[in-house]
Amino acid sequence: MSVDVLGYIAGAITALTFLPQVIKTWREKSARDISLLMFLIAAANEILWIIYGALLDNWVIILTNAVVLAMSSTMIFLKLRYNKK
Amino acid sequence: MSVDVLGYIAGAITALTFLPQVIKTWREKSARDISLLMFLIAAANEILWIIYGALLDNWVIILTNAVVLAMSSTMIFLKLRYNKK
Repeated sequence: MSVDVLGYIAGAITALTFLPQVIKTWREKSARDISLLMFLIAAANEILWIIYGALLDNWVIILTNAVVLAMSSTMIFLKLRYNKK
Repeated sequence: MSVDVLGYIAGAITALTFLPQVIKTWREKSARDISLLMFLIAAANEILWIIYGALLDNWVIILTNAVVLAMSSTMIFLKLRYNKK
């Protein structure tokens, strides 16, 4: 297995890391224990990574971080919606 | 600002993304709404990234992911400890 393949696998897993949290919060409609700041930092950071990927013309970085940005934004929405329950 | 500097900044922020969640869970001693699966995936993924960084001899990748692995492991511990409260 080449080093590149390992990087693609790690990138694909990174893209899906937040998915179990999104599904759990969506189903249970409860986000009291979730840190809003964590997902705000994550979202801002993903925008930086997407700019970095665009400057390097690296689509693996762009796409991985676009997926994580979408999940982070969803978590921010869910946190604000379900925070008090 | 060079592209490399942007990468270092993004990497440093990535390393600290989980910190607000660790602090919140540690203080409130409540982790019911946290997805255990998310942090298990994150921890396994960080190990892949560290191997990838080691194979490329890239210390930015190694150190960034070592910090995130430490935070993910802490969250797994806190989730198991405070899940029922």
